[in-house]
Formats: sequence, C-alpha cells, structure tokens
Amino acid sequence: MKLIISSILLFCTISAFGQSQQTHKIVFQMATDVQKEQSSLARQLNNVLDYWPDAEIEVVVHSAAIQFMMKDQSIVESEILKLQKRGVTFAVCRNTMKRKGVEENQIITGAHFVPVGIAEIVEKQESGFAYIKAGY
Amino acid sequence: MKLIISSILLFCTISAFGQSQQTHKIVFQMATDVQKEQSSLARQLNNVLDYWPDAEIEVVVHSAAIQFMMKDQSIVESEILKLQKRGVTFAVCRNTMKRKGVEENQIITGAHFVPVGIAEIVEKQESGFAYIKAGY
Amino acid sequence: MKLIISSILLFCTISAFGQSQQTHKIVFQMATDVQKEQSSLARQLNNVLDYWPDAEIEVVVHSAAIQFMMKDQSIVESEILKLQKRGVTFAVCRNTMKRKGVEENQIITGAHFVPVGIAEIVEKQESGFAYIKAGY
Repeated sequence: MKLIISSILLFCTISAFGQSQQTHKIVFQMATDVQKEQSSLARQLNNVLDYWPDAEIEVVVHSAAIQFMMKDQSIVESEILKLQKRGVTFAVCRNTMKRKGVEENQIITGAHFVPVGIAEIVEKQESGFAYIKAGY
Repeated sequence: MKLIISSILLFCTISAFGQSQQTHKIVFQMATDVQKEQSSLARQLNNVLDYWPDAEIEVVVHSAAIQFMMKDQSIVESEILKLQKRGVTFAVCRNTMKRKGVEENQIITGAHFVPVGIAEIVEKQESGFAYIKAGY
Repeated sequence: MKLIISSILLFCTISAFGQSQQTHKIVFQMATDVQKEQSSLARQLNNVLDYWPDAEIEVVVHSAAIQFMMKDQSIVESEILKLQKRGVTFAVCRNTMKRKGVEENQIITGAHFVPVGIAEIVEKQESGFAYIKAGY
C-alpha cells in the first residue's frame, strides 16, 4: 500500500517538475530575410550547443526567411550543414514554399518539411519546448 | 481503495499531459508598425485556421502596432473583420491607446480591450497558450 | 489513510494549477540595437510593474542589444537603475561581451552576468516564466 502511494507521489512529482531534469528542448522561429540576423542565429545555435551539447534544437523557417534555407542562396549554408551534424533540425514551412514557388530540391539537404511553420512552433511548445524568436 | 488510487493517478495524468489533447491555443503578439508584417500576420492567422479550424487564437496588439487595429487606417481592416468571424480575438492595449490618444470608437469593431498588452500575453501563457511573436 | 490520499491529491492539484496563483514571472529577451525599441522596453517594464507590482521580471540582454546595458552609452541608463530598484533583474550575456570586447566594469551597475543569454531564457521558461520577445 505504502509502495503504491509512494509511486503515485513520485509520478506526480516527475509529472510536475520533470522537465527541468530532462534535456533542454528549444524551438527557434526564423522569419526574417535580414542577413545579419541569419548569421546571428547560426552563431547563437553553436553557442547554445557548446554550452549544452545534448540540447534538442529545432529551427522552424518560414515567411521571408525561406532564402535562409535555399541552396546557393543562403549565406549560412555551410553553417547549416554543420549544425545538422551537431543534431539541429531545420523545419521548413511548406505553405511558404508553395506561395513562393520553391521546390524541395532547392532547399538545403537534410531539412525537414512541415505543413504550417507556425503550427509546428505551437506543437513544439505544447510538447515542452522553450521558444526563442530569432531576429531582432 | 483501488478505485480512489486509480482516480488520483488518472487525475495526475490528465493534469500533466492533458494540454496536448485539447484545442490548440495560441496568443500572438503584434507590436510593429511595419505594414508588410501586418499583412503577413493576417495571412498566417488564416493559414493556421485552415490547418486547425478549432484553434483558439488571440492577437494582442500594442505599442507601434496600434494602427493595425484602427478603422480607416489599418491596411488589413477587412481581413481582421473576416478573422473575427473565424473566431480570432483581437485584444488592444489600453495603455497604448491612452498614450497615443486613441479612442475606443477609432478601433475596428469587435476588438477587445485589455489594460496592459504585455500582461495579457503573460496571462495567456500562464493559462496554457503557446506564444508567437509576430513580425520579423 | 484518507489524510495521506487527500494530501497527495492536494499536492497534485497545486503542482498542476499552482502557477496561475503565484506571482507573475516574466523573462524578456532584448536583442536589438534599435534605440526606439530600447525606450519602448523601459516603458513596458514600468507599465507591467505599475499593473503587477510584485511581478518577478528578468531582462536577458544579448547580441546587438549589449549597448543597452553599457554605462554612458545606453539611452535608458537612468531608467535601468530605477527599474532595478523596482526589482527588475538585468542579465547580460558573457558570450556577447567576450565577442564584442566589453568588460564587466563597462556594464551598468547592478547587472547580473550569464554565460549564454539564450540558455538563460530557456532555463527561465523551464522554471515557469512567461516569455516576451522585446522589440518589434
């Protein structure tokens, strides 16, 4: 009996406070075409990973930022490829691609695709990710 | 006895994980007077509602964005009226209105008014809304 | 026995819903060098404190915003000193300082220092702070 109650208590404790004991999970929103901000984001992602090598990071790219993820156009293409090797996921909004006439093969290799960028950010927050809006 | 314990366990589970099973709730912060970003927000809200017709969405408008919600001045007035019909709430900061000398009757019909825009965004986050900062 | 179960139930309830009954906790991200936005932030912080005098507020300053926190350079130095007296914490990113060659004694008195600004914002969100991205 006591064991059962202890288990419940432990379960509740973990449910309520467990997040801070887990891997840090962060979703970044990238929505600007300002190149200085795109370089800043690449640097910030590396800084966070230097500090927390196990952090689970997803960057959701949409709207004016689509060029950030385009082959031969992105000023941070090599940084993005390196960040993917460090475990960062880049999720590109299909709605934006459709509106701007961008095809999957124009996007930097390794990217993921999501139907609606903002919905993806919402779902990540719902599943316990902290949210950071990139840009200034 | 077992029934009681099961109930507690169920209650804890719902408390901890219930949010992801509910309607998606999103609070947007709109604080910029850049017109391109105001059009983007209107489009994004429609995209999210096309994807999640039952999403509960509030847009908090404050600071430089007040013109976004002003009759005969907003470049997205007709979109805002349509979005209200789709269930989106627009909450305008009274502090901003006071500082800029804007009266209630100058604001697009159907808007709500809140004393402090940022406090409203905080309260929405506290009650389980995901947060999206509009603009770039 | 009933007392124990009641206690567990109470504990779970507090764990799940307690946040909304506590002091409002807010972490602001300040990352822009646009002076108009720096003045806006100072005003917004005062507005929130006028509305919620007990709010626990931390402003994390990083990237291009570092000048916001520099003695004799910040256009809101006197406001920052007053806000500190009202209980606001200003946390400056050491990574940014290192990259820009800024020393601790160049930063407005009373500031805190954190290794990675974005990591600080993430930790605050993990511990129940609402997040507000300053700027437009």
